[in-house]
Amino acid sequence: MIAPSSSNGQREATRLIELRGGLGAVPGVKLAGVHAGIKKRKPDLALIAFTEDQNGVSVVTTNEIKAAPLLVSEEHLGTSGTKMRAVVCNSGCANACTGERGDRDARATARQAAALLGVKQTQVVIASTGVIGIYLPMDRVAKGLERAVKDLEEGMEASYDAAEAIMTTDNEPKLAAYAFYDGEQRYVVGGIAKGSGMIAPNMATMLAFVATNTPMSREALQNELRAANETTFNMISVDGDMSTNDAVYLFSPRGKGDAPPGFAETLRTVMHDLAYAMVRDGEGATKTVTMLVSGARNDLQARSVARAVINSNLVKTALHGEDPNWGRVIAAAGSVHAGLDPDTWSLYLNEKLWVDRGAIEVLSEAEAHGELEQTAVHLRLDLGIGEATATAWGCDLSKDYVRINASYRT
Amino acid sequence: MIAPSSSNGQREATRLIELRGGLGAVPGVKLAGVHAGIKKRKPDLALIAFTEDQNGVSVVTTNEIKAAPLLVSEEHLGTSGTKMRAVVCNSGCANACTGERGDRDARATARQAAALLGVKQTQVVIASTGVIGIYLPMDRVAKGLERAVKDLEEGMEASYDAAEAIMTTDNEPKLAAYAFYDGEQRYVVGGIAKGSGMIAPNMATMLAFVATNTPMSREALQNELRAANETTFNMISVDGDMSTNDAVYLFSPRGKGDAPPGFAETLRTVMHDLAYAMVRDGEGATKTVTMLVSGARNDLQARSVARAVINSNLVKTALHGEDPNWGRVIAAAGSVHAGLDPDTWSLYLNEKLWVDRGAIEVLSEAEAHGELEQTAVHLRLDLGIGEATATAWGCDLSKDYVRINASYRT
Repeated sequence: MIAPSSSNGQREATRLIELRGGLGAVPGVKLAGVHAGIKKRKPDLALIAFTEDQNGVSVVTTNEIKAAPLLVSEEHLGTSGTKMRAVVCNSGCANACTGERGDRDARATARQAAALLGVKQTQVVIASTGVIGIYLPMDRVAKGLERAVKDLEEGMEASYDAAEAIMTTDNEPKLAAYAFYDGEQRYVVGGIAKGSGMIAPNMATMLAFVATNTPMSREALQNELRAANETTFNMISVDGDMSTNDAVYLFSPRGKGDAPPGFAETLRTVMHDLAYAMVRDGEGATKTVTMLVSGARNDLQARSVARAVINSNLVKTALHGEDPNWGRVIAAAGSVHAGLDPDTWSLYLNEKLWVDRGAIEVLSEAEAHGELEQTAVHLRLDLGIGEATATAWGCDLSKDYVRINASYRT
Repeated sequence: MIAPSSSNGQREATRLIELRGGLGAVPGVKLAGVHAGIKKRKPDLALIAFTEDQNGVSVVTTNEIKAAPLLVSEEHLGTSGTKMRAVVCNSGCANACTGERGDRDARATARQAAALLGVKQTQVVIASTGVIGIYLPMDRVAKGLERAVKDLEEGMEASYDAAEAIMTTDNEPKLAAYAFYDGEQRYVVGGIAKGSGMIAPNMATMLAFVATNTPMSREALQNELRAANETTFNMISVDGDMSTNDAVYLFSPRGKGDAPPGFAETLRTVMHDLAYAMVRDGEGATKTVTMLVSGARNDLQARSVARAVINSNLVKTALHGEDPNWGRVIAAAGSVHAGLDPDTWSLYLNEKLWVDRGAIEVLSEAEAHGELEQTAVHLRLDLGIGEATATAWGCDLSKDYVRINASYRT
C-alpha cells in the first residue's frame, strides 16, 4: 500500500514484501467472522485463534472511562501474557458504561470462547466496538461464537470475514501484511483494524489486531509495539483523546531476547498502512492529507504541530472546499505552544513551495487551488529551526461527516 | 439577555439593570461603523473614541503566531496604558502572517486615526479580523477612517453600526450593557463583540471591546478583566487554542485602587452575554448547549471536563441529530485525564436525571430525544467526588458549519 515515510532516517532499509490477507497471512492464525445478530444485518462477531501459545501485548486508550472488555483483557494479558490463544471482538455494542453487568458479560464471552477452544479463560482477549451504554445481547453472542469456532480457518478469505465483522461506520475492511527476511529466514507481520471516525479529537473507536510469526521475548514485543504505535496510530489520534474502547493488540510466538533486524520496520509499515486506511476511510472523507513537519527543534515539537494541523476543523473544512486558505494551517500550528518562530517557517503543498519565509505567497491562488483538487494532499510545514521531522495523517471534514454522526444510532 | 450562572456562590447579589446599546450605553464613548471597501458590500471598519483618557487593558491570544495589529496594540497599551483614546477595528482582513508590511500597515492605521482625532499614535488600539495572509487595502482603510471620524456619535445607533462593522461570519451584531449601583452612584459596563466560529478547537477569531465609566487603577482593571475572562470567553474557547487575532480589550476612566462592589459581577455579566451570543450565533448552529459540571474535586477539573464535552465533535453532531447518545458525553469527559471516577458520575438533561450512578439510564430514549429537541439544551454532569462547579457553553455541529467553512474565502 503506502510506503512508510522515513521519519527516522537511522534505520537500515529492509526489503519488505507486501502480502495479501492481513492477519490471515501470518502462519498459525485462524480467523472467522459471523453475523451474531448484535447488528441487524452485517457481520458483527470476529474470532481470531492461534494454534500455539502467544506473547500478547497491548496499547490501550488513556480515557478515564474504559470499556469492560478492555479492562478484562488487560487482566488476562497480565495473567496469561505469554500463553494467549484467542481474540473475540464484536461490533455494534461497545460494552462501555455498562457497570457490573458489562463486566460479567465480557468475562462470560471470554469464558465461552475458552471452553469452545479448549483453553483457559485468561488466554482470551476480548474487544468491543459500537454504541456506548447498551448491553451485549448475550444469547446472540453465545450462538454467534459457536458458529465462529466452527468457521475458523486460515487464509485470506477468513481474514476478510473477521476484518468485516469488526467494522462499525467503516466503508471497507482494513488489512495489511508484509514479509521480511532475516538472512534466509522469512517472517510475516499482518493485521486487521477498524476505525473510520475522524479520529482525534473525536474519539472514534479504533481497534487493531496484529500478529507475527517472529519469536521474541514478551518484553521485546511490548517495546516494539510502543515504538511503532508512536509514529502510526498515535499520529492519527492524539494521545489522551481516545475512546473508551481504543486498543491495539500484538501477538508473537514466545522467544528469547529482541526481535531480528527488519521486524521493527515491518511492524511499523503494517501499522502505518492500517492507520492510513482509517484516515482514507474517515467518516464522510473525500480527501486525505499527509502533514509532514520538518525543520523542528525536536520530535515532540514536530509531532505536536503535525497533529494540531491535522486535527483543526478549520483546516479540514478548507481542505474539503479546496480553499487555499494557508492561514488556517499556520494558525493551527501556532496554537499548540510548541515554540514556533513566526519568521522562519515555510509551507509546501504537494512539495511545491506555497508560502516562503516571511509569509510570502509563492503559489498563486489558482495554482494552490489546483493542487488541492487532488484526493491525496501533501502538506509540509518547515519550521526552519532544527532538524526533527514528524508526519501525521488526516482527512477533510465534509457535510457527510455530520450526517453520519448526527444519526449514528438511528 | 441571559442571567449569569452563579458558578461562584461567594459573591453577594448585585442588582443589575440591563441596558440597550452595548458599548454605546457607556457615557463618554463615541462610535462609528462604515463601509471602507475591505469587504465588497458590508460595513467593515469600526471606530471607538473616548472623550477622556482611559486605562486600557487586554487579554490576548496565546497563539504563537500573532497578528500585526495585536502586537502593535500591546506595544501601545504598554506605552500609553493610562491614556488610551480610541480603537480602530476592521473586518475582512486579519492582517496576520503579513510580515513587515503588515506591521507598517497596522502602525499607519493607528497613526492616521490618532492624527484625525488629535491624539498620539500610541493612544490608539487597532484590531483586525478576517482572512489570514492578505494585506490591508490601505487606501480604502484611510478613506474609511476619515468618514468614520466624521460619523462618530454617542448612543445606541452608532454602537450597532460599530458592532456590525466588526462582523465576519456573524449573523447578528453582539452588544451587551448593564448598570449597577454603588450606593447612590450609578455605573455602566457595556461592550460589543464579534465571533461566530465554533470557537475551540477551531480558533475562530473573537474580538470584544468593553468599557465602563467606573474609575479604578489600571492594575485593578487588569485583574477584573482576567477574572471575568476566566468564566466567560475562556469557557467557550479553550486556552491556547486561540486564533492569531483573538483579543478582549477593556477600558475605564483612571482612578485609584479597586473597583467598587458590584463591578466584578456586572463586568462578568456583560462578558458572559457577549460570549453566549457568540455560541448562539455559532457557524451553522441550530442549538446551544450549556454544560454544567458539578461535584468536581476542584475548579480546574470542572472546567476541563466542561470544555472537553463542549468541544467534542461527536457530542456536537449527536446534539444536532437530537440523538440521545449520552455515551459520547461520558467518553469526552473521560478523555481529558482530569481524574474522573467512572462509578460516581450522574448525567442530567434539562435538569432531569438522565443517567444515574453506575450508568443506569433513567430517562427513556424517547424522553431524552424529546428534551434534545429544545433549541437550548442544558447538560449537567455531576462527578460525585467534590463540590466544585464550572459552566461552559457551546453549540451543535451542522452541515452548514462545513458549508460556511469550506468556502469562507470564495
